[in-house]
Amino acid sequence: MKLIDRLFGSVATHGHVCLGLDTHYDYIPGDFRRKFDTPADAVYEFNRRIIGHTLDVAACYKVQIAYYEAMGLAGIKVYAKTLKYLRDQNAIVIADVKRGDIAKTAEMYAQAHYSGDFESDFITLNPYMGMDTLEPFIPWIADSNKGAFVLAATSNPGASDIEGLCCDGVTVAEKAGDMISKIAAGYAGDCGYSPIGAVVGCTNTEQTVRLRERLANLFFLIPGYGAQGGKAQDIAAYLKDGNGGVVNSSRGVLLAYTKPEFAGMSFDEAARAECIHMRDEILKYCGR
Amino acid sequence: MKLIDRLFGSVATHGHVCLGLDTHYDYIPGDFRRKFDTPADAVYEFNRRIIGHTLDVAACYKVQIAYYEAMGLAGIKVYAKTLKYLRDQNAIVIADVKRGDIAKTAEMYAQAHYSGDFESDFITLNPYMGMDTLEPFIPWIADSNKGAFVLAATSNPGASDIEGLCCDGVTVAEKAGDMISKIAAGYAGDCGYSPIGAVVGCTNTEQTVRLRERLANLFFLIPGYGAQGGKAQDIAAYLKDGNGGVVNSSRGVLLAYTKPEFAGMSFDEAARAECIHMRDEILKYCGR
Repeated sequence: MKLIDRLFGSVATHGHVCLGLDTHYDYIPGDFRRKFDTPADAVYEFNRRIIGHTLDVAACYKVQIAYYEAMGLAGIKVYAKTLKYLRDQNAIVIADVKRGDIAKTAEMYAQAHYSGDFESDFITLNPYMGMDTLEPFIPWIADSNKGAFVLAATSNPGASDIEGLCCDGVTVAEKAGDMISKIAAGYAGDCGYSPIGAVVGCTNTEQTVRLRERLANLFFLIPGYGAQGGKAQDIAAYLKDGNGGVVNSSRGVLLAYTKPEFAGMSFDEAARAECIHMRDEILKYCGR
Repeated sequence: MKLIDRLFGSVATHGHVCLGLDTHYDYIPGDFRRKFDTPADAVYEFNRRIIGHTLDVAACYKVQIAYYEAMGLAGIKVYAKTLKYLRDQNAIVIADVKRGDIAKTAEMYAQAHYSGDFESDFITLNPYMGMDTLEPFIPWIADSNKGAFVLAATSNPGASDIEGLCCDGVTVAEKAGDMISKIAAGYAGDCGYSPIGAVVGCTNTEQTVRLRERLANLFFLIPGYGAQGGKAQDIAAYLKDGNGGVVNSSRGVLLAYTKPEFAGMSFDEAARAECIHMRDEILKYCGR
């Protein structure tokens, strides 16, 4: 089955939660941490437990490489092991690496993140340098069932600096979205969406509604939920017929065990409870 | 001494060449390759030989992480070893990682690339998500003598897609440059430049002259020389009084041994000869 159809199907059966494994050592409960000789071991086992408790309630997983790079070589090994564990569980994996480079360098990034030790299903890409940065990923997407989410409109306050600049009456984010949509058009799955999707944050509702209309063939990876201000009632506007997007939550799930409403639960039970809560909140507003 | 003053001084004594270690296994001569058990070992020793033969004729080194990531975990180890070897030689190192992310994630990237196994002096950053992506790097730049080059105008054909969009009469690249310049202003070294510089490619001469005038306090990392079309006679326009920028060459140096004019030389001797040739060509047009 095509990757994008797998993701579409996963949203239909599991809901919209994209569980972000932005795992910092400090997020791990002290009594669990102390069982391991190294921070890297603790992070891996923490991830494994979180994954094991959420496979049926998360649509996919997003692994943010920065947290692993910050632990040096030992961290990169845990990054690779976490990807492998996810893929062994038949989970859909987004490597949040936000690469953006050209020609041979971009070919190397495609090889790095679509095969070998760091193989994932989707990767995130940054379009600043232009659409030729996407080209080296296309053969993998067309022939090896891989995918990408390209940054269009992000959820941070600084998004107005570049993405929000206005050219010919539309924003840079909309221009980027249009260009991504055009490139994505040739590769749609049975669900109608392309395995080349867009990152569209849920903190600027007005813009996102415009983007959803312009970019009908793009599946959205939606950051900004929870702490950054995105609300469940806004999510429906980012979707079409209740599908076409996944909504990321990282700390909200990883640190669910610290919330009063989940007191007494282990961190993995709390993560599952938080995933279910978030899933159901979003589904409620989608009329599902 | 402040990092940017070291780089300024290195340009004054060694010339403008930034030697790009975008080392692909295929670039290594067969007879040298065959001495090693693994591609990773061959790449590391190739790098070490190139570095050893060019320390006095290159201003600095740029290590492109994509080529190492593509070799998986073994490649990442070689990346770390190459950075360490360069720093042990007291060379100035730019990690070409083009990271761009926000808040805690960007903090993790700063920790990853300014300390520990992957410590370098400068890193490259991508400003698409906005200027808040730069903030987590500032404490390292201010307090730990680190630096960054932020993408403004790159040298690839697709640069027109986003960087070339026109807003309020100026391009996105110029807008980005202005924002980078403003942030950089507080941290200038004795040489007048800031350790927060800009990536400005040398394939669009007209725009670059405008950028050089607008961004007087920014040191430039200049890609696009050689195969991409940038010429020595254009470089002076990107500099001020013959300093204020380094010009990257990667394959031109690494594959110099394949050029007819260096026939009979070993790859490291040819790399040195090519570095000297490029250095002298640029100096000639700078009137030095």
